[in-house]
Amino acid sequence: MEAVKQINVGLLGLGTVGMGVVKIIDGHQEDLMKQTGNRIKVVKALVKDINKKRDWTRSEQLLTSDPWEILRDPEIDIIIEVMGNIEPTFDYLMYALKQGKHVVTANKDLIAMHGAELLAQAKESKCDLYFEESVAGGIPIIRALVEGFASDRITKLIGIVNGTTNYILSKMSEEGRPFEEMLVKAQELGYAEADPSSDIEGLDAARKMAILSNLAFHMEVHFDDVMLKGITQVTQEDIQFSKQLGYEIKLLGIAKLNDNQIEVSVQPTMINKEHPLAKVNGVFNAIYVYGEAVGETMFYGPGAGQLPTATAVVSDLVTVVKQMNLGVNGRGVIPPYRNKQLKSDDLIESSYFIRLKVVDEVGVLSLLTHPFADLRVSIQEVLQVPANEEGKAQLIIITHTTSKAQMNQLIEEINALDVVDHIYSIYPVEEGEAE
Amino acid sequence: MEAVKQINVGLLGLGTVGMGVVKIIDGHQEDLMKQTGNRIKVVKALVKDINKKRDWTRSEQLLTSDPWEILRDPEIDIIIEVMGNIEPTFDYLMYALKQGKHVVTANKDLIAMHGAELLAQAKESKCDLYFEESVAGGIPIIRALVEGFASDRITKLIGIVNGTTNYILSKMSEEGRPFEEMLVKAQELGYAEADPSSDIEGLDAARKMAILSNLAFHMEVHFDDVMLKGITQVTQEDIQFSKQLGYEIKLLGIAKLNDNQIEVSVQPTMINKEHPLAKVNGVFNAIYVYGEAVGETMFYGPGAGQLPTATAVVSDLVTVVKQMNLGVNGRGVIPPYRNKQLKSDDLIESSYFIRLKVVDEVGVLSLLTHPFADLRVSIQEVLQVPANEEGKAQLIIITHTTSKAQMNQLIEEINALDVVDHIYSIYPVEEGEAE
Repeated sequence: MEAVKQINVGLLGLGTVGMGVVKIIDGHQEDLMKQTGNRIKVVKALVKDINKKRDWTRSEQLLTSDPWEILRDPEIDIIIEVMGNIEPTFDYLMYALKQGKHVVTANKDLIAMHGAELLAQAKESKCDLYFEESVAGGIPIIRALVEGFASDRITKLIGIVNGTTNYILSKMSEEGRPFEEMLVKAQELGYAEADPSSDIEGLDAARKMAILSNLAFHMEVHFDDVMLKGITQVTQEDIQFSKQLGYEIKLLGIAKLNDNQIEVSVQPTMINKEHPLAKVNGVFNAIYVYGEAVGETMFYGPGAGQLPTATAVVSDLVTVVKQMNLGVNGRGVIPPYRNKQLKSDDLIESSYFIRLKVVDEVGVLSLLTHPFADLRVSIQEVLQVPANEEGKAQLIIITHTTSKAQMNQLIEEINALDVVDHIYSIYPVEEGEAE
Repeated sequence: MEAVKQINVGLLGLGTVGMGVVKIIDGHQEDLMKQTGNRIKVVKALVKDINKKRDWTRSEQLLTSDPWEILRDPEIDIIIEVMGNIEPTFDYLMYALKQGKHVVTANKDLIAMHGAELLAQAKESKCDLYFEESVAGGIPIIRALVEGFASDRITKLIGIVNGTTNYILSKMSEEGRPFEEMLVKAQELGYAEADPSSDIEGLDAARKMAILSNLAFHMEVHFDDVMLKGITQVTQEDIQFSKQLGYEIKLLGIAKLNDNQIEVSVQPTMINKEHPLAKVNGVFNAIYVYGEAVGETMFYGPGAGQLPTATAVVSDLVTVVKQMNLGVNGRGVIPPYRNKQLKSDDLIESSYFIRLKVVDEVGVLSLLTHPFADLRVSIQEVLQVPANEEGKAQLIIITHTTSKAQMNQLIEEINALDVVDHIYSIYPVEEGEAE
């Protein structure tokens, strides 16, 4: 009988996700053995403070506060990184890859910023670098993009990829309460951090969209390429009017490819309420994928949470171990092979929702629609309601498809009109049809 | 410069899907080359009649009506099977595998019936055997089950895996028209075959659920293990009452694992209309997966159609070619490693909807509820409406969770009551919660 080879795992970070990883590896020993033929064991875990009280029944000797004890240990085959941050994490993982250790990471900030360098080093060292968990927690979307749609040409992705903002926006829509209140509720429930800016400003979603666009379009898309707007300006009035017109407001990541040029954005967007994405509520994530051949598909699941996240990490780990047994690590990586070309503003198209305050007098609508006609932006729908102010009215306009360049000019011209008091808000509108 | 190796593909069948496969391989040459490093070419295609008129601009020499010209061609590396049927297809594929050819098949009937033998031969011949397309066309669900959730324990699958029946049921629900009429409509649109029995009797869905259960639970689940009921008995009245009570009727495939015992069924089922599966309409497919760690995830997409289907086939082809380059074909296969244990009827639990015709007189409800009390089946909801017949009433009862064994006995006892005229229908009710 052949001896069972043990695969030793070093864990960088033992917070919520790290504990979940240990729980799954220990709890599913038998299944993991069946699937890989190996015993998989976490042999060391990096923590900040060894003496901290934690729900940890295993030997204290597993814990270390010195990362080099793990990174330099020749017995450790695979590093699982769940400590977060860019530095010193990036240096640790580069070092690990250079030592020939495979890496599984849940760190989307790091992948969005240094993914290309890490992948290049992994390729050179013939090591695996997996990061399924970095986008949409429990949903195996990266695997689907890389393998499932390998033969298709993906032309559009629409994603709800941040659970915190989706929770806040769905609660605002359900309960009719303002942003600030729902943010506090999200913080109380542990869905939002004490400093929530990375979520509510859309940074987290933008990093994920950069990673997804990269894989979908085979271009090196960076965080800086993502047009970005957070949800802090979304008001209850915007939500009520959008509902009245048949839409929900969601923080959507949209990535589109047309004629080899791409656009990637993350911004609060009105989506047709019959679209499946409009019905994704709470902390759930969902990603719509349009492929030329396959048409529309959607992936839905938990975007965060200890066990969903840990599951994605351990599934990556299983893939690495299988590839170790086959001796084919580091070969599955296909670096981006297309030149990145970003669309200019005159090629980025959408319809828009515009809500503004105007002087309530005869002929206003006619004056207001002049710039639309001049710029050939056609109007789909107009709604006029009283404003909370004497002599003023609110106008809501939904346009047909127009370019971002034209929209910018239109807004400038509208703003210059004497009858226009204030532009409250502008949202792109997504009907969700394939392009 | 290294010469580019050409990979030769033999196609068994050149119907709609076969033509789609050729279209994608030819149309995406550059992408396929970037992804695999190889030129991939369909060199021969098996057809019934070489002289038949077809939309085929390539050289006629590619076509053959002799399967052995393909199966015995030593230059052909990979067989793509899209001809359907069990015989002679099974013999062809066994022969191909024995010759060391890799196989990609879209044939769910064959996989459901002979999957284990084909996989065993593939393993022995160190060949790949892929069948992503066999379930849910364009949705990469098999990849997700095999790899994405590799580290999780899947405890429940709920699937809408047959587009034809989902089209018929959604149309019945939307338009209020009877089954027979919507079946004809589905046939006119090409969604249903001239002989629709495989779809409407649930056979197709049962084959797919057998394949999915196999992969999810690591047990050798056969078609015969699936409890099966088609949609031919679903009436407009059932649909109207289910709506009134907050449900939609869908043909659901349900597979559950509890304490190492499984149940697999395909039957018309009432599902809470707030559940995402209730909103999957038309020919779309969707599969809900519950994992112990990941919680609930859903995959949604086209279940059929030339290009979605062909995409799944070609994505499998890309995987095979990548593995050829790595020299690791046939090693990814993990045969079922758990003993199959099917639940007995007293362990299969559900709530139920029962609709029956009773004599309309005082005390009927009391008489009727006796057997429920005796068998400890508790009632969740009762609705009484007039029947179309003098002196009769309709009763609709929704029970709380009970076992199938108890339900069978209950139905027998109810049937024996003098006041009960007729039991119109019985449906399991699925609230969709995780178990």
